[in-house]
Amino acid sequence: MQPVKIGLLGLGTVGGWTVNVLARNAQEITRRAGRGIEVGKAFTRSPDKPRICPTEHIELVTDPWQVVEDSSIDIVVELIGGTSPALELVMRAIELGKHVVTANKALIALHGNEIFAKASEQGVMVTFEAAVAGGIPIIKVLREGLAGNQIEWIAGIINGSGNFILTEMRDQGREFADVLGEAQALGYAEADPTFDVEGIDAAHKLTILAAIAFGIPLQFESVYTEGITRITPEDVCYAAELGYRIKHLGVARRAAQGVELRVHPCLIPERRLLANVDGVMNAVVVSGDAVGPTLYYGPGAGAEPTASAVVADLVDVVRMMTADPEHRVPHLAFQPEALSDLPALPISEIETAYYLRLTVADQPGVLADIARILADQGISIEAVIQKEARPGQTEVPLIFLTHRVKERQLNAAASHIEAMPSVKEPLHRIRLETLE
Amino acid sequence: MQPVKIGLLGLGTVGGWTVNVLARNAQEITRRAGRGIEVGKAFTRSPDKPRICPTEHIELVTDPWQVVEDSSIDIVVELIGGTSPALELVMRAIELGKHVVTANKALIALHGNEIFAKASEQGVMVTFEAAVAGGIPIIKVLREGLAGNQIEWIAGIINGSGNFILTEMRDQGREFADVLGEAQALGYAEADPTFDVEGIDAAHKLTILAAIAFGIPLQFESVYTEGITRITPEDVCYAAELGYRIKHLGVARRAAQGVELRVHPCLIPERRLLANVDGVMNAVVVSGDAVGPTLYYGPGAGAEPTASAVVADLVDVVRMMTADPEHRVPHLAFQPEALSDLPALPISEIETAYYLRLTVADQPGVLADIARILADQGISIEAVIQKEARPGQTEVPLIFLTHRVKERQLNAAASHIEAMPSVKEPLHRIRLETLE
Repeated sequence: MQPVKIGLLGLGTVGGWTVNVLARNAQEITRRAGRGIEVGKAFTRSPDKPRICPTEHIELVTDPWQVVEDSSIDIVVELIGGTSPALELVMRAIELGKHVVTANKALIALHGNEIFAKASEQGVMVTFEAAVAGGIPIIKVLREGLAGNQIEWIAGIINGSGNFILTEMRDQGREFADVLGEAQALGYAEADPTFDVEGIDAAHKLTILAAIAFGIPLQFESVYTEGITRITPEDVCYAAELGYRIKHLGVARRAAQGVELRVHPCLIPERRLLANVDGVMNAVVVSGDAVGPTLYYGPGAGAEPTASAVVADLVDVVRMMTADPEHRVPHLAFQPEALSDLPALPISEIETAYYLRLTVADQPGVLADIARILADQGISIEAVIQKEARPGQTEVPLIFLTHRVKERQLNAAASHIEAMPSVKEPLHRIRLETLE
Repeated sequence: MQPVKIGLLGLGTVGGWTVNVLARNAQEITRRAGRGIEVGKAFTRSPDKPRICPTEHIELVTDPWQVVEDSSIDIVVELIGGTSPALELVMRAIELGKHVVTANKALIALHGNEIFAKASEQGVMVTFEAAVAGGIPIIKVLREGLAGNQIEWIAGIINGSGNFILTEMRDQGREFADVLGEAQALGYAEADPTFDVEGIDAAHKLTILAAIAFGIPLQFESVYTEGITRITPEDVCYAAELGYRIKHLGVARRAAQGVELRVHPCLIPERRLLANVDGVMNAVVVSGDAVGPTLYYGPGAGAEPTASAVVADLVDVVRMMTADPEHRVPHLAFQPEALSDLPALPISEIETAYYLRLTVADQPGVLADIARILADQGISIEAVIQKEARPGQTEVPLIFLTHRVKERQLNAAASHIEAMPSVKEPLHRIRLETLE
């Protein structure tokens, strides 16, 4: 059979490695797919720049529309990132009956609903394994591997730069800003690290995971998002003293009244495998009602792992492109007409345990007063650390772990606590999940 | 669309939970598959026994052939285990054009080649996700999720009972035989535990994983298999002292001259996630040339996790049963005509590092003599532990970690060492893998 011709939008590191992996594993891929895959055309802004891949058999063009409009191209691989012109290009490719493989999490999280609607209308596939957790085939696991389950919850370390920073803070006792600088120098974090450290990148990925886990439309705007910029080395130490590690998690949970969608720093027990996922690695725990908790671990970023996911999608698309659309796995795992309108819960209604750190005057009765305020709001205490003041010190740290409590109860307690004259700084709080 | 009718061969705990999961998640499954799945008929030897699932809508029969021959049944789910009559029943179902879902690792490992040949001839699917690592969708990950990779190696904890025993030995410092008794009492190990503790069960599973990872025929007879019965609490302690844990691993590796297929106890560095997989849980590390190392973790046994895998297979089969066979994923991941004849390497040619434990006379020069023998065979030493003799003791333990060496070199050294009068017991050796 003739090889399938694909067109690349973007020939940077992921694009270059996609070319390399397709070439290096050409025989392996043909043995699997039953058909070869050939890069016919690639869009790049600077065709004369040195490349990490050979390009002599690829037609390089400086206009991305030339890839999309080329009638010899069956599959468009979108690797330019961002939402414009990626969205316009992808929509046009679909309109022309081409299949699309993308690594673009922002595009899918923000515009997936319209993209998939159009794709279903046109009978083409849009695949996005590379958009979440790099080389870990988590989309396939959720859409197909656990198809017999009601997914109960997902908790994942889905931003490598953030996890690198938290790992260094713990291992070296360093400050956030200091490690961030190093991560930028190493190329793990962007010059503008907002997307990583404020959790926006993780929120894009969580949006996608939650949609295919629960069969709900993509709804990025409903994700509660909190970054890691306010985590201090002290928090990391106290957490360790209590048997926990701090990770930046994306959590999606099916509750009775709706779904929880949230990205925030989180204490997790140190004996959990997820607590031991370090550096730039990613891992996602998925708990299904039949299977129980399962975990998927691997490189969550990097050009070659991302290319691994792009090529796996290509093999799937090649195998199914001439099949009747009804035989294909639905884009969001569930048949489009069977998506659910389960609402996203507001953060005030979400229940978790908490780590609380206060700076208080070193005087009698403060602990008792705070404990009373917590009790009045129905918040039970799981553990307390109070350290002796060092000579000359007039303020001391006070750490609480609470049992599970609704965010709004904690807010109420916090405003009372912060109004106490003996409490010297705003309450510092981090959620805690046992992941059971 | 009409629901698909399936027939169950076996209505024990896995069969019962398959019925329960299909009923409990009926809506979810239909939303995914686009079509319902209904159990029409089930074979059981004792139809009057109390069941863990409702059976009022299922026709119970005491002759398994009645399920296979029933023309209203589209998919046969084989859950009786063993190879006979499972093989005859499965072959007949295929002959009749029925698809087959099985959880039977022995059947696939020993007879998969003929089963898949027949299935391809008849244009039907035979799926077996539940045969390896219970609820972890490792077959799907290898066949599809990592399809862009040349798989380099796999290392897995794929027998839950064995891992439970090793975990208890480490946590409690207990003897093998003692923990085995408890595992049997708890139902984690069979009355005849040979399949688990001698590694045969793991070898069945490794056979399947290696075939779909490397695109080679199933070849159970080529797997080197060593159990955990000779691991002592001392070994567990010394390993810990050196920073390692002992796990029972299935390892498949692609080497230049062929493939390594082996099941044996193994020291692995304690900081690896795989070293921290405890109790009855399973985990498989898969390293691909593009993605690097990835890990998949979850419950490797148990009726409900196994049912999770059976139902995922059913959803796949339902989606693809009316599709042209060329659109389906090949049984062994690679197109049948593209399987490779890469030979399996004999264990004597396989290279690993080693943990060696000797009992030697407490006299000068013994360490030097042994080190000399190792050096003469080209074996370098990575670490040594020699303990002072306690008062009155005339024999002391001596522990070596070696660098990587071929098994046959180690055999040669071992025969020289064991011939030394100062060496009091046969050399005790366990392989060591760093999993990098």
